[in-house]
Amino acid sequence: MRDALVAAAFRLFLERGYEQTTVDDIVALAGVGRRSFFRYFPSKEDVVFPDHERCLADMTAFLAASEEDAEPVRRVCDAARLVLLMYAENPSFSVQRYRLTKQVPGLRAYELSVVWRYERALAAYLRGRFAGRSDGSLRADVIASAVVAAHNNALRSWLRSDGQGDATATVDHALAYVQSAFGAGPNAPAAPSVDVRPESPEDVVVVVSRRGAPLWRVVQEIETTLGRT
Amino acid sequence: MRDALVAAAFRLFLERGYEQTTVDDIVALAGVGRRSFFRYFPSKEDVVFPDHERCLADMTAFLAASEEDAEPVRRVCDAARLVLLMYAENPSFSVQRYRLTKQVPGLRAYELSVVWRYERALAAYLRGRFAGRSDGSLRADVIASAVVAAHNNALRSWLRSDGQGDATATVDHALAYVQSAFGAGPNAPAAPSVDVRPESPEDVVVVVSRRGAPLWRVVQEIETTLGRT
Repeated sequence: MRDALVAAAFRLFLERGYEQTTVDDIVALAGVGRRSFFRYFPSKEDVVFPDHERCLADMTAFLAASEEDAEPVRRVCDAARLVLLMYAENPSFSVQRYRLTKQVPGLRAYELSVVWRYERALAAYLRGRFAGRSDGSLRADVIASAVVAAHNNALRSWLRSDGQGDATATVDHALAYVQSAFGAGPNAPAAPSVDVRPESPEDVVVVVSRRGAPLWRVVQEIETTLGRT
Repeated sequence: MRDALVAAAFRLFLERGYEQTTVDDIVALAGVGRRSFFRYFPSKEDVVFPDHERCLADMTAFLAASEEDAEPVRRVCDAARLVLLMYAENPSFSVQRYRLTKQVPGLRAYELSVVWRYERALAAYLRGRFAGRSDGSLRADVIASAVVAAHNNALRSWLRSDGQGDATATVDHALAYVQSAFGAGPNAPAAPSVDVRPESPEDVVVVVSRRGAPLWRVVQEIETTLGRT
């Protein structure tokens, strides 16, 4: 019944437009009563995002089940991947919804509030992990926000490709960028990695190294990089 | 007239509650007609955030006027400070509004859409600056989002202190964290700075250095830090 309501709603949204479709139209096409609709969905907007509540609950449970010594930035990146999985489960539905959301300001506002709730879930976990550290809440908010922005940049790029590209690889790449900025690298490299950010004329060299890495390896990496570029 | 409408609106919001106050109530107290209200504010929500449109326009103009070789991360941090200035212009009004916004879900949704527009303005500038670089749009989105999150973390902390603390210092500190993660440091240090992130048991040493810094200085900093901690 729930799936039938979603299918009917999207058929009408695409045929007539979102604003021109009423809940009565949806229930008539699905062959059910209004009360059945509102049993599943508090409003017409909610039928556009039928799985976000479940995904938010999954994310919260996933974070609550974290090992105590899990690397926190990696953990929130993994939590964000649950959102991608939801979109990738049904690419054609996700692409349709993406187009619809771009056209209807009310749906964009709804989506912003959903994104905000994901971000708050990630930040709450990080605040717990960073509790007692200096700037714990600041770090938690900034990292949660960066993770969501990276995830959504990759997700949108996949949706714009009509769901044709490799969603997982795109999101992994985007999240690796956040991990490199804030946490252990995605593969927790034992050897140092050197990243030259080309900020001409004020180039900055950033060296990220596990503390266990021998100093000569760090120096070697810096020398190689400076010589190479 | 505009200020009188804002003052009347806030007096009623605080006395009766936001939902219980109508535009008719506001114009009656301000002694003007409904049309005057809607000349200044498209809706009741807009009167709660009377200066965001001006601030968004200021931010866009500020970014458009950037020097071509401005360090881009620092530039968007400076742009974000314009929002702080708007709040700090009138602390008691900002604190009242903060309390109101926390209580009224509709205003929170409105605020999310405003924040999203600031973030898009910063990201648009960064996309231009990063055009043609690998991952330019990803970096732009992530950094814009991190800047907004840091700014808002500091702003909220100031608002929760009833506008008593030093708003500028709090925001500067928060933005310096983002600059250290993504760009040149806040004071563009010529000497390398070393930051140990205490991720026990997998501590990571992060060295940020201008490319001009001599290698021996970088090595010295790493040695000092590893020896010290």
